Order: sequence, then structure tokens, then C-alpha cells
Amino acid sequence: MASTAFDYYRANREQFLEGLKNLLRIPSISALPEHKPDVRRAVEFVANELRAMGMRSVEIIEGQENQNPLVYAEWLEAPGKPTLLLYGHYDVQPPDPLDEWKSPPFEPTIRDQNIYARGAVDDKGQTYLLLKAVEGFLKAEGKLPINIKFLIEGEEETGGEHIEQYVTAHPDRVKADAALICDTEMFAPDLPTLTTGLRGLVYTELEARGAGHDLHSGTYGGAAPNPFQALAEIITGLKGPNGKIRIPGFYKRVKKPSAKELAAWKRLPFNEKEYLKKEVGSTALVGEKGFSVLERTWARPTFEVHGIRGGFTGEGAKTVIPAVATAKVSMRLVPDMNPKEAIRQYTAYVKKLTPKGIKTAVRVLSSAPASVVSTESRWIAAAANAMEQVFRKQTVYMRSGGSIPIVGVFLKHAGVPSVLMGFGLPDDNLHAPNEKFHLPNFYRGIETVARYLMLLGQ
Amino acid sequence: MASTAFDYYRANREQFLEGLKNLLRIPSISALPEHKPDVRRAVEFVANELRAMGMRSVEIIEGQENQNPLVYAEWLEAPGKPTLLLYGHYDVQPPDPLDEWKSPPFEPTIRDQNIYARGAVDDKGQTYLLLKAVEGFLKAEGKLPINIKFLIEGEEETGGEHIEQYVTAHPDRVKADAALICDTEMFAPDLPTLTTGLRGLVYTELEARGAGHDLHSGTYGGAAPNPFQALAEIITGLKGPNGKIRIPGFYKRVKKPSAKELAAWKRLPFNEKEYLKKEVGSTALVGEKGFSVLERTWARPTFEVHGIRGGFTGEGAKTVIPAVATAKVSMRLVPDMNPKEAIRQYTAYVKKLTPKGIKTAVRVLSSAPASVVSTESRWIAAAANAMEQVFRKQTVYMRSGGSIPIVGVFLKHAGVPSVLMGFGLPDDNLHAPNEKFHLPNFYRGIETVARYLMLLGQ
Repeated sequence: MASTAFDYYRANREQFLEGLKNLLRIPSISALPEHKPDVRRAVEFVANELRAMGMRSVEIIEGQENQNPLVYAEWLEAPGKPTLLLYGHYDVQPPDPLDEWKSPPFEPTIRDQNIYARGAVDDKGQTYLLLKAVEGFLKAEGKLPINIKFLIEGEEETGGEHIEQYVTAHPDRVKADAALICDTEMFAPDLPTLTTGLRGLVYTELEARGAGHDLHSGTYGGAAPNPFQALAEIITGLKGPNGKIRIPGFYKRVKKPSAKELAAWKRLPFNEKEYLKKEVGSTALVGEKGFSVLERTWARPTFEVHGIRGGFTGEGAKTVIPAVATAKVSMRLVPDMNPKEAIRQYTAYVKKLTPKGIKTAVRVLSSAPASVVSTESRWIAAAANAMEQVFRKQTVYMRSGGSIPIVGVFLKHAGVPSVLMGFGLPDDNLHAPNEKFHLPNFYRGIETVARYLMLLGQ
Repeated sequence: MASTAFDYYRANREQFLEGLKNLLRIPSISALPEHKPDVRRAVEFVANELRAMGMRSVEIIEGQENQNPLVYAEWLEAPGKPTLLLYGHYDVQPPDPLDEWKSPPFEPTIRDQNIYARGAVDDKGQTYLLLKAVEGFLKAEGKLPINIKFLIEGEEETGGEHIEQYVTAHPDRVKADAALICDTEMFAPDLPTLTTGLRGLVYTELEARGAGHDLHSGTYGGAAPNPFQALAEIITGLKGPNGKIRIPGFYKRVKKPSAKELAAWKRLPFNEKEYLKKEVGSTALVGEKGFSVLERTWARPTFEVHGIRGGFTGEGAKTVIPAVATAKVSMRLVPDMNPKEAIRQYTAYVKKLTPKGIKTAVRVLSSAPASVVSTESRWIAAAANAMEQVFRKQTVYMRSGGSIPIVGVFLKHAGVPSVLMGFGLPDDNLHAPNEKFHLPNFYRGIETVARYLMLLGQ
């Protein structure tokens, strides 16, 4: 047995990589019901790892029908020491469009020190490094510097409600001094980063229904309502070409970041031209005038269409006016917006924008408020310190435009504040083809989490 | 052997129906490449029927790679009599959405004197009745009253170019005094109808490309261009909420129907409320103010979106800003619009409407001009007479909002005027689930075509 956790990490680099590859090979896509068996395989993989490393009370927590299980585990044998709740998710986004992947999404492939696979960084790689950090102490030293709980879910990518229901029903089970969430990214390579703000999310389906059945566009074109035309009108009604959301009252509760936070953002190494060229790859950026890119993506709400279902999209020319078309629409929320209020405002304005001949319906698939974490707490300070020890640079604070609803859930239902320590990179292609995780960050992540546990245990 | 064609029709009603069912069972969907073998089966079915009934020079005419074959046949043993070219198509529209069919689209099912199947009326049923009308004379009388050519194609539903290429290259082969096309509908049940005008069609794909790859809407939302938003802006820019197409110059060549034609349309048994309720089934009709429904669908150009491909449209919540989204867009043209000019105007205006950060591309899948047929010719007069003999009502003249590009092809390249004699009904669900053909019209169609041949042979 190696003498310290760090010896163990050095000795087991290959085994860690093989383990990660095995987890990445499981296509545990929570959005697609046909992948339920893979979700089950991923749950069992995680639970088996937790048992094998010596965690106690390892439990697969089943939800209601169609919900994906949680995995819980604990090690509470450090009396007087703080308790840290480690959170991750084993589910992944769908991999489409498949033809844009250079290597198959569920056959992890290493190129240039990066491991390419769906879920590599979001969030299997970052969940797995939490497991390996803890494993090092248990295997090499037989104990942990602090008390640890794991709660790992399988519905993060679909906004599923199982974990919120569980935390609400069992606040004592997840009770901890803080939660550590590894599901974010670093602002730049080698720049240790803590994320102190997240946008919220309202995800909806917006259905437009015109004729009673599909119609021939030759026979009926010019008289029958076309639900695509209606959606186009509604979508442009909801957001103008200047990037402003036109929903009445939508910006009312939007809180401007503090002058200090805005000043700190200005000091971050951000180059708009590089961002446009290397990250986005379009001919120009868009969005609201008078706000920097970081403000637009971190501190302003959004309205985005993700897909429009209906009609004919195959090869060739089918001349149909479909009865129904449905847009997938989400809005990102910022402090202090209220998701319920935003949904009400959106739904009411959709109704108002609905043209004659069309009936619309809004279905809310998920919603969560934005959250901001205080940079003052000892949990954040220790996290910044741990990162600096490994990366040897000063830790910076950023926000994220994405949403991690669990942050709000932990705080609201169990009183647990979250620390968002991420090891992803801006070009890791989250939710896109060729998702990757930079392997040096996988290993540095393990060490950083280990140092964080040690600092909290001092 | 029965003594007349009409005796033969009466004696073979069951066999005709069985033959039609066999043809309808072949899913010869020209828009879907995976159905190529079915297209082949349909071609051979038609060619075998033509051979069996005694037509001469029956030939399957292969096209270029990916083109579907034509079937040609002739019987030219009536010297001094006119020659009629009979046209139909054996290809069908895709059947989706499948779950809205009451019986499977390729399992022909009879309910209430209607035969339900994809292609029942468009155009297998109406093509088959041409075959059976001719078969009656050949089998019962050993000869035809006039000279007949058949030219049956398999790319009508996709606007394929094989038939146009063939007619252009072999005008003598298809040369005839007139063409009879059974691919239209009757204005009302029991009301014999000839169609004297057709709209043209330009069918395009409008692609919008933003980022270089799919992006996470949390991370990039607010700064990255969204191609769905761009398409919504372009679509509403191309057609306003009032139904007016906004493409500069688009209406310039639109010819108003004559006062006589408009007056005749007003006398047609058209009830806007019934049309809205029974045919369209929406809460209201849409379209340009100041034009009746018949004008809007017969004599005004349209702009319609048929589908939008890209992003995520599955179950659940995928938060993607896709790199590319593509709308299927068509425009119907009316006399005297020029398809090439319309494409130029559309493409130029799409370019102008393209928002920053987005690149657009227009691909034209097919195009054909509108056509109007004179009601003065002997070919039309005899057709009206034949319909009146069978239906025992005065024949009315209508236009159709649909497009039958072959009408323009026959006239332009072979100098052959077309007679559009249709036996479909307004509620036959063309291009939609539960397509049907009213069986009494199938049998009346056979008799009407037979009487037409006899009248032309007198």
C-alpha cells in the first residue's frame, strides 16, 4: 500500500484512465428513453466504484417510474471535522449530430492529451475525478481528512426532478457544511477558476397548431394557416433582431453585477476576437448592445430556440403545410429573476403574439432560478487555495452562463452552500460533437480535490 | 369476350379494384432513397399491365443515376384519328406522420366506399383508371377509337427532371394532338370539373449557418448567433403577418384572372365556412386581404415553410445552439411569373434579410412555371362533354393551386396542350394522412375516359 493519497494517484494514473474510459463507453443519455438500460449500467458502475473504494452505506436510490436513480454514499468517521457533499452526474447529452464526430462518441479516444467522448468533461470525467480523489485517501491512508457524502444523479441533462424531490424529502441525509460540484470550466487553460454565479433555466416546448390535419401546400397555400410561419412570427416577437427579449416585464428583476465584480471581469484574459474565431466560429457575435460578451453570457437573460419539430425535413420536396409544429425554446435567467414569473410572462406573451388561425400551447419541461455564491466563505477560500497549490497561479472568480439547478436545490432545501470548482476548458465542446476532457486537468483535478479535503481537515 | 368496352368495365369491377390495391401496396416514395426498390417494383407493375392489355412498344425508360424510370407505351393503329397522350405518375408522397393514419398507408383499406392508401388518388388511382379505360377497348373490341400513347413517370412528387429531359430529347416520341392528365380534383362531389389553370412551384432549401459547431446555450447564449432565430427573422421578413410576400418585385408579373373567370368562380358552390370547418379545420383562414379564398389559392403566389431541420427535436431538453438549421421553403407561382426571376428575387432578398453572424445559402430543388389552359379548344370541349355524359351535370372550370410541371413541359417542348380531367375530391387528403379515393369516382373515371376517347374518335 502506498503511503499517501498522492503516492496512490501517481501509481494509478493508467488505472484511472482505464476506469474513466469504461464509464465513457456507457451511452447513458438521459434525454432518450431507449437508453434506459445504459443509464442503469452507468448507475451500477458508479455504485460499484464507491463500494470498492470503501465508502459506506452505498445505495442506489430508485425514483418514480421514468426517473433515473441517484447514487448515495458516505464516510462519516472524522468526528469534529466538516462534512463535504460531493455532487456529480453520470448522465450525458445526446451525441447528435453524429456525423460531425471525428471518433465515435462512445468510443473514448485520446488525441493530443485530450480524451474525446460524450460526457468526457460533462460530467463523467469530473465526477470520476471526485471518486478517485477520495479513493486515494481510503486506499492509501485508510481514512479521509474530513467527512464525505456523495450524491450523484442521472437527470442533470434533462432537468429531471428526482434529486430535488430526494433532497426535499431527506434534507438530513444530504446535510453538509458545503457541497463541492465539479461541473464547470476554467476561464482559460492553466488559470484556476471558481464559478460564483450560474444562470437559471426555463426550458419549454412551444406548440403551434393550425389546420386539423396536414394539408397540401398547393391546394391550400394562401388560405390555410402555416404553424411554421406562426412560430417564426412568435419567435421574432419574443426576441428582436437586436437581441432584446421583448416579453413585457422580463428584465424587471435583472440585477446588475456589482461594480467590483464587473471590474474583476474586465481584468480576466478575454479576447473577443479569439473568442469569436476559436470558440464560436461565426462571422460575428450577436446580442444586446451596451453589454460586454461576459455580461451577455453571465449576467443577462437569454431566449434561444433549440429545434423545431414538424412537417417534412427529409431529402427531397414534400409540399406539406403541417397541422402542428413545435419549437424547443429555453430562457436563461439571472439574479433576481423568478422562474415562475418568467414562465407566466412568457406564456402570456406567446398567447398575445399568436396569430389568427393558430392555437398555441406552452409546455414547461424544466425550470430553475439563477444562483450567486458568496466569495467570502471559508469553503470558497479553501477551494481557491487548493487550486493555487496545484496550478501555481492565483485563482480567479467567474460566473457561468449555464445552469446547475442543484446549486439552488442544495441551498434551498438542505441549507448547503455550493463550491463550483471546475476543470473543463472553454473549448471542450460541451453538448456538441467532439466533446473532450484535457487529461492533465483530469489528473490535476484529482490532486486539487485531495488538497481541498486536506485544507478543510486542518 | 364481352362485346363493348363498357361491358368489360362492368364485368371486371372486382379485378380492377384488386389491381389497384396491388399497385397501392407498393411504397414507391420518390422522396426517400431507401424506397428505390419499391419504385422499381411500381415501374414494372405498370409496364406489365400495359403489356398484358395489348399496348405496343412498351418500354421502361431508364434515366441517369438516381432518376426514376419512365414507362412508355403506344397503340397507333387508328389512321386519320387524333393521337392522345395519357400521363400519370406511379410515385407517391412520403406517408408521415404515420401515427395519424387510421389504417396503414400501404395496406389499402376500404371504408364507406373510399379506398384509403398513400397514392390512392394522387396519382396511382387516377393513373390506373387510364390504363383500365384503354384496356376495356383493347380486350373487348380489339382496338381503340383513337391513337394512344402512355407516358407515366416516377418523380412527380419530387419535381424530378427525368421526364422533362426525355420530352426535350424526344419530342417526336411524345408528339400528340393533346395530353390527358388525370391528377386533379373535382370542385365538389358529383360536379364534373376541368382544371384550366395550375400554379407553378419553386421549392428550395434555405440554410442558415452560425457558429462553427454546435454550442451549449448556457455558455454561449447571448453572444453566439442562433440559426433558428435567423430563420425566424428571414421567414417573417419574406412574408408578413398579413400574408403579403415582402420580396421586392415578387408580384410585378402577377396577372389578374379575367372578369369572366372571376365571375364563373363566384358561381361555384363554395362555402367559406364549410371549407374552414371541414377541409382546413383551423380556427380561421389566413391570407391576403381583398382576395377571395379561390383567388388566394388559385391566382395568387404563396410562400410556405414545410419543415425546419437542425438542432434537437427529440424528447426532453437539449440546450444546444446548433451550427446549422435548414428550412424547406416553397413558393407557388401564378401567370405570368417567371420561375427564374422569382428565384433571383427570393435569393437576393434572403441575402439582404440575413442577420449578422449568419451565412445563408439557398438551394433550389425544383421549379416550374404556372400554366393556364384555354377553354376554347376541341380537346377541352370533348372532355367537358364526356364528363357530362357520365356525371349528368354541366362541367365547371376551375383552377388548381397545385403544380403539375408536366403541363408546361408538354406544351413547351412537344407542342402538346393538356386537358386536366380529375376525379379526386376536395377531402381526399392529398399529401396528408388518410389519403383516399372515392371508389365510385374510380369507376366513373374509367367510363369518362372511355367516352372521351370515343368522342375524339368520331
